[in-house]
Amino acid sequence: MQAQTSERPMKSAPTPSLRRMPMYLRCLYALRKTDVEWVSCTYLAEVLQKDPTLVRKDLAMTGIVGKPKVGFHVTGLVAAIEHFIGWDNLEDAFLAGVGNLGSALLGYEGFAQHGLNIVAGFDVDAEKVGTEVHGKRILHIDKLTDLAQRMHIGIGIVTVGARTAQAVADRMVAGGIRAIWNFAPVRLEMPPEIIVENEDLAGTLAVISRRLAGLNVETDERE
Amino acid sequence: MQAQTSERPMKSAPTPSLRRMPMYLRCLYALRKTDVEWVSCTYLAEVLQKDPTLVRKDLAMTGIVGKPKVGFHVTGLVAAIEHFIGWDNLEDAFLAGVGNLGSALLGYEGFAQHGLNIVAGFDVDAEKVGTEVHGKRILHIDKLTDLAQRMHIGIGIVTVGARTAQAVADRMVAGGIRAIWNFAPVRLEMPPEIIVENEDLAGTLAVISRRLAGLNVETDERE
Repeated sequence: MQAQTSERPMKSAPTPSLRRMPMYLRCLYALRKTDVEWVSCTYLAEVLQKDPTLVRKDLAMTGIVGKPKVGFHVTGLVAAIEHFIGWDNLEDAFLAGVGNLGSALLGYEGFAQHGLNIVAGFDVDAEKVGTEVHGKRILHIDKLTDLAQRMHIGIGIVTVGARTAQAVADRMVAGGIRAIWNFAPVRLEMPPEIIVENEDLAGTLAVISRRLAGLNVETDERE
Repeated sequence: MQAQTSERPMKSAPTPSLRRMPMYLRCLYALRKTDVEWVSCTYLAEVLQKDPTLVRKDLAMTGIVGKPKVGFHVTGLVAAIEHFIGWDNLEDAFLAGVGNLGSALLGYEGFAQHGLNIVAGFDVDAEKVGTEVHGKRILHIDKLTDLAQRMHIGIGIVTVGARTAQAVADRMVAGGIRAIWNFAPVRLEMPPEIIVENEDLAGTLAVISRRLAGLNVETDERE
């Protein structure tokens, strides 16, 4: 039995809702391994300690329609969310900067499940070039642009230091990469059509520090 | 010459504004190394590619009042933002899970500048216990609770896998740790008074994937 998908077009996705989707998926992947076939918003809200109304709104965004008093078919809901995020197609990525953080990301097994396939790592360090890290080949950064073009790579992950991040991102864009996931603590100047997401650890740290100092933090009403 | 600070109490801080503060600080730290003494919202907005009105609102939150047509004194603005975030006091932290990600965080030099002092790392691996990683001692996880208590540690950083994250966070809380910075892809169940911030890479990946798939993402109107 399949959960129904409505004919309405998918709504535009607000960022906070989108960011919560992997959390729902993790919960559903776990359920899928059990005998449970149906799941309710109330159950998800309870497990994830979220407001049930918020969960209901988030899931409705994917276009799925539940069965009254029963909820959603687990497999159908997984498919709807994966499609909503765009995770039903695996996207190839290059990573530049094979330091500690870069190595950690190369070895992160969750990415494949999350639609991301890191194909290779790039560095300038002669001791790293030619080796493998977590089964991924490390190549010289000079090869990045050409290879990205030939392999139609979509995502570039920047884990170099702040000083070289812009140059590395420029090489990625020159190779046709359309989305940059930037871990360097620096603002990148990119053409407007390039998707840039900054992973700013300092931003989270600011939230923690202020809350620890006993100062007020207004919660995002949509969180 | 000092920038004036208004007598109004600091406002409660919306999360997106708070997350942008480190970005302003990085820009101001760079300016501080030059001869520039005064800075305007327009300049910051231009460099950071943000809306000037948004920058103005963010900075006003810190309680600082600029000089008409001149802007803010760089040193005064740095102090105001640091105080607003709570970064004028360095907070001690323990990190549990010295894998690739944990090692990367132990070696991240930016943290000290961001009010965070990682005192030691913890692991169960006999080969890691007793060594140093980036100058930080690695101790057995069994010592975490007791040491956290004796050293009045405020922040616990969880970089273990999903399966052990809850147990590790429980040990931290038992040791009096008040804020958990969780990098494990799992939702932690914590007492309500504990501050939990989840660093969810999958969330960012969801935003990137959906935008790459050419699907609509509504920007947060406060971003």
